[in-house]
Amino acid sequence: MIRIAVDGMGGDFAPKTIVKGAESAANEGVAEIVLVGDETLMKPFIHNTKGLEIIHTPVYVEMDESPSTALRKKKDSSINKAFELHKSGYVQAVVSAGNSGATMAFATITLGRIAGVDRPAIAVLHPTESDRLSILLDGGGTVDCKPTHFAQFALMGEAFARLVQGIDAPRVGVLTNGEEETKGNELTRDSHALIKGLGINYIGYVEGGDVTSGKADVVVTDGFVGNIALKVSEGLAEFFFNYFKEHIEKSFKAKLGYLLLKDVFKSLKKKTDYAETGGAPLLGVDGVCIICHGKSNEKAIHNAILLAKKFVEKNLNESIQEAMRGYQALQKTKER
Amino acid sequence: MIRIAVDGMGGDFAPKTIVKGAESAANEGVAEIVLVGDETLMKPFIHNTKGLEIIHTPVYVEMDESPSTALRKKKDSSINKAFELHKSGYVQAVVSAGNSGATMAFATITLGRIAGVDRPAIAVLHPTESDRLSILLDGGGTVDCKPTHFAQFALMGEAFARLVQGIDAPRVGVLTNGEEETKGNELTRDSHALIKGLGINYIGYVEGGDVTSGKADVVVTDGFVGNIALKVSEGLAEFFFNYFKEHIEKSFKAKLGYLLLKDVFKSLKKKTDYAETGGAPLLGVDGVCIICHGKSNEKAIHNAILLAKKFVEKNLNESIQEAMRGYQALQKTKER
Repeated sequence: MIRIAVDGMGGDFAPKTIVKGAESAANEGVAEIVLVGDETLMKPFIHNTKGLEIIHTPVYVEMDESPSTALRKKKDSSINKAFELHKSGYVQAVVSAGNSGATMAFATITLGRIAGVDRPAIAVLHPTESDRLSILLDGGGTVDCKPTHFAQFALMGEAFARLVQGIDAPRVGVLTNGEEETKGNELTRDSHALIKGLGINYIGYVEGGDVTSGKADVVVTDGFVGNIALKVSEGLAEFFFNYFKEHIEKSFKAKLGYLLLKDVFKSLKKKTDYAETGGAPLLGVDGVCIICHGKSNEKAIHNAILLAKKFVEKNLNESIQEAMRGYQALQKTKER
Repeated sequence: MIRIAVDGMGGDFAPKTIVKGAESAANEGVAEIVLVGDETLMKPFIHNTKGLEIIHTPVYVEMDESPSTALRKKKDSSINKAFELHKSGYVQAVVSAGNSGATMAFATITLGRIAGVDRPAIAVLHPTESDRLSILLDGGGTVDCKPTHFAQFALMGEAFARLVQGIDAPRVGVLTNGEEETKGNELTRDSHALIKGLGINYIGYVEGGDVTSGKADVVVTDGFVGNIALKVSEGLAEFFFNYFKEHIEKSFKAKLGYLLLKDVFKSLKKKTDYAETGGAPLLGVDGVCIICHGKSNEKAIHNAILLAKKFVEKNLNESIQEAMRGYQALQKTKER
């Protein structure tokens, strides 16, 4: 059975929701779970140890700690211990809802990168008008990107969409400010030219609206724009739900209407709830790492473990390795 | 009375919705309206010429035409004729729902820029959780920005929020991928340092979610990120309303619920409808130009005319001129 390490101390509601999510996945036999963290703090929330192992690690990274400080001073933290367990082969994946900068930094340093990958990328799953999710990457890892990073993101996202999401010939687009080739900035224009030649189902420029329209399966951007796009989306969804909540409480008629429409509200909430997808895989590191939202609840952790399992089972990293070899060969041909 | 030129030929539903919006504003005495465009195409939609003048201009810019082509070949188009009327002093403002790239280009060339402004910016009004609107700029004009452009955007947005929106000491933020000073990219970090010293109510970095949270009144970004942020927001709003529409039609219970909740849906739709604000002022040109959404309906055009009127009445450009003089003086002091 697959063994997955979960950072028990990472997340706004850690260790409680993390432990409970890990416990439910372990009890259901999704995977063998290794909870890494402060045993005295985690134990009160554990009721059934079936499939669950605890590795006591008293040090942990705070949510608001600077990743560079954590990197220097907290090599013995729960999150890095999890990656060390992965590196040694004891576990096949790591799930963390902790400080995402520190998680990414430790993952990159302790696991290393897949040969040919210059920068790992956070692949965030986003709901669309169709039944499919779109995959936006990079969701916040690499702020300053070059065209070669975009090309690698495109290849990694394409492999993830194909293998883990099960999409045939995923449509890949570059996020920009208009569909026409004359739009974009220097970075997107050079990336566009490069990605065109990769032999994937590249559909060209896509716009902000296409993160939800479903026009593209994989949306390539840098970590700066990606983070802003995702936060705008999250903020607007919150605004909508808050607006309904506030106004429904104000009148009896509206309350009654809400009761009749409750199923629709619930299904929409479910469709836009990040807990449903669990977390975002960090693509490009030599291992499996799922980065969860800081506010992750029990369900999010449970689903992140399911996603990690699928990532391992589908041998995604082998395909990424292969894609990177192909990419490097192509670049060498160009140089000649 | 103020006289405003409206490009009758610009917009996805032109000339019909444009003519009707202009006519209603003219008939109500909001301003004297000069409709510029092909008389034979516009006339069928005009019923009452009270307050309305037509200037026949058979040439117009297509919605999907490249702005640089338009600039070279269509100096005699309706949109540029409108700006020429403004330049000559015959009208005090221009409203256009046409090709926004061409509108911006002709505005900049025909009207010129306010002394000290390097790049004009599109200031887009966005709904927030509070009663106020946030002002995001640049909404798509200048893709590649420098810190000095950001500083000018901050000053122009601040003046607009204060004078036209009536906000005391507007809170100005720079859009980035995290609140901490260590976040951002080179452009935002240098801009942050520069804007800090401008003597406005600068609140530092704001995130994507703050476009709707209401934390900032003015959100400064470049035209590339600004366009993506706005399109993501528009796309998600569409997704939400479509989702409800589709699911409400499916069941009688849901339909009944919708009827009871209709007022809430309508008020939310109104709050997020760009037709309510009418359009986005192009700040920094030596004149008044409101850029409307391509899909503008009659109400949007009417409201854009109201916004143009307010812009003129509040003497916004005088304040921007003053702010630019102060900025230039400050830069000179620094150089010493």
